[in-house]
Amino acid sequence: MKIGVCDTTFSRVNMGAIAIDELRRHASVSIERYTVPGVKDLPVAAKKLIEERECDIVMALGMPGGVDKDKMCAHEASQGLIKAQLMTNTHIIEVFVHEDEAKNDNELAWLAERRTREHAENAVRLILRPDDLIKMAGTGQRQGFEDAGPARR
Amino acid sequence: MKIGVCDTTFSRVNMGAIAIDELRRHASVSIERYTVPGVKDLPVAAKKLIEERECDIVMALGMPGGVDKDKMCAHEASQGLIKAQLMTNTHIIEVFVHEDEAKNDNELAWLAERRTREHAENAVRLILRPDDLIKMAGTGQRQGFEDAGPARR
Amino acid sequence: MKIGVCDTTFSRVNMGAIAIDELRRHASVSIERYTVPGVKDLPVAAKKLIEERECDIVMALGMPGGVDKDKMCAHEASQGLIKAQLMTNTHIIEVFVHEDEAKNDNELAWLAERRTREHAENAVRLILRPDDLIKMAGTGQRQGFEDAGPARR
Amino acid sequence: MKIGVCDTTFSRVNMGAIAIDELRRHASVSIERYTVPGVKDLPVAAKKLIEERECDIVMALGMPGGVDKDKMCAHEASQGLIKAQLMTNTHIIEVFVHEDEAKNDNELAWLAERRTREHAENAVRLILRPDDLIKMAGTGQRQGFEDAGPARR
Amino acid sequence: MKIGVCDTTFSRVNMGAIAIDELRRHASVSIERYTVPGVKDLPVAAKKLIEERECDIVMALGMPGGVDKDKMCAHEASQGLIKAQLMTNTHIIEVFVHEDEAKNDNELAWLAERRTREHAENAVRLILRPDDLIKMAGTGQRQGFEDAGPARR
Repeated sequence: MKIGVCDTTFSRVNMGAIAIDELRRHASVSIERYTVPGVKDLPVAAKKLIEERECDIVMALGMPGGVDKDKMCAHEASQGLIKAQLMTNTHIIEVFVHEDEAKNDNELAWLAERRTREHAENAVRLILRPDDLIKMAGTGQRQGFEDAGPARR
Repeated sequence: MKIGVCDTTFSRVNMGAIAIDELRRHASVSIERYTVPGVKDLPVAAKKLIEERECDIVMALGMPGGVDKDKMCAHEASQGLIKAQLMTNTHIIEVFVHEDEAKNDNELAWLAERRTREHAENAVRLILRPDDLIKMAGTGQRQGFEDAGPARR
Repeated sequence: MKIGVCDTTFSRVNMGAIAIDELRRHASVSIERYTVPGVKDLPVAAKKLIEERECDIVMALGMPGGVDKDKMCAHEASQGLIKAQLMTNTHIIEVFVHEDEAKNDNELAWLAERRTREHAENAVRLILRPDDLIKMAGTGQRQGFEDAGPARR
Repeated sequence: MKIGVCDTTFSRVNMGAIAIDELRRHASVSIERYTVPGVKDLPVAAKKLIEERECDIVMALGMPGGVDKDKMCAHEASQGLIKAQLMTNTHIIEVFVHEDEAKNDNELAWLAERRTREHAENAVRLILRPDDLIKMAGTGQRQGFEDAGPARR
Repeated sequence: MKIGVCDTTFSRVNMGAIAIDELRRHASVSIERYTVPGVKDLPVAAKKLIEERECDIVMALGMPGGVDKDKMCAHEASQGLIKAQLMTNTHIIEVFVHEDEAKNDNELAWLAERRTREHAENAVRLILRPDDLIKMAGTGQRQGFEDAGPARR
């Protein structure tokens, strides 16, 4: 099993390093890292990790800025990540933290770390323990902030 | 005949379980279930259900949140689901319930269940009884809330 | 020559039946009909009509609702229809009537019928009389409401 | 060398005829014309001109209306034209004139003619004199209204 | 190693010439230049540079105008650039400077030059020194204006 981790120099938190740390806690897999300038460079990087470096799943980590132009970049990147998955029949877990989700730099760093770690667990589940995800279906899971929980308890 | 059911851990209602229950009432088919973290993970999951697990049709079930960022995620997921259908020449019935369609958690759970069940019927019609759909053409069907009905009665 | 007609149960007017009636007036062609639940199911249906049922052209008929979410659905469907055309090198005439284009149910039914009939003529021209379209180039044709006409008369 | 010209019956100016007139002034090439109902029909028409009628480049001419729904149609058509180019490795010059760019019908006709003629020159440059474009790089060229010119003179 | 540089005649700064100047400072590579009219022509130009002129990476340089229609063009171009990358498994570095990012023509020229030069460095890193990018991961790099820096120092 090989997991790809691609992240950006644009991000204000080293999300790639955090992802690798968390992945190693949950599975003994080999890891390929690929850092690109910004989120729009992630789709092809993820696809290359899958097709050229034989990853079984990829985490695509990014931190879009808070203004409208940044949101459009994130949207374009997301569409590319979905397309890359369809072209390869391989999951790419998108982990985006929008700068305006946090009140200040401290919360931003906390949120980026927590969301990255929780999605690293999801990546491991997807390739090694898919039945764990079925058990969690419909339970209102969130990555980063608190879970929403099921609508009926 | 095999029907794929993919749903999410993000959803606050176990839409996958509801879909499977309803499908079994209408057809004796085998069912493949695949749970992923969120709606953006659905397109590749649906495509894998079709290409790797040989489903003849897939239901893609999700519950996007109510804020703008969530609506964008749903839009990206929808585009991916349409692309996946075009790449496979296979229907994927999108069943999305937006959190802000309901007034409260109770209505949300009710809406998610009802829309899922009505679309499960549509899935069965598409693969087993397409002529039933032709008879319903132009009758203003809705899934979840009340039908709109035909413009001229 | 074979013309595909795909429409929806969501529509409040039986646009498929109207299209078939009009097509038969203008050309002696065989017709394949395919009814799906909503506009987002049209792209794959149209592609299947082309690739599996050998249609030379397809009419994709739908009636999106008037709220924002419906407009997004129509946008996603339109993108899918364009993609399907590019994948098959075959025209798919999109005939969408937005519920909020009409003042009331009567006008809605009138508009849906008229737009469908005028586009049925376009479909016939595209496959049988393309030179008729060249003669109409730049004349401000509209389907449904009144033509805009040329800017300079 | 063969140049494809596709235009619409929706346009209020015969942009196809203008393009052909201008192309003939600048190059002795054969021309294929293809008229379709509206801008959303242009992507597949352009692709067919390239793949079935062997055009080396295509001009896609359209005049979207001024309301929101029209802008969305233009957006969808533009995306399709870009996709068609990527699928064929062939340029398709999009020449769209939005009805609300002009104050009145006269200006609209003037703008449509001028933009079409200037882009016809670009089409010829792209296939016959690419070095001319390199010399014009970064000079703030506009098609239709006045050039913006370079930021530093 | 061969680097493609594609730019536009629409841009008000000769971004292509600047990119070539900077690339030559950092690497001894051969360079292919391709100038097109506007940003929507960049995706196919970049793809042709990769597939027909064998570039290992491409810089796509453009300067979208400041009004809504221009922003839509930039969005469409960006999506096309991402798609071109996925179709070729090759990076295309998008360097767009929006006219409304600068207060006046002088700042616009300054910004376009600086962003182009900084992204030329990124292009060289991506193909020759990918480990340099890993070292810069999560450090809040920006191209043009000042770096944002890491959230936690």
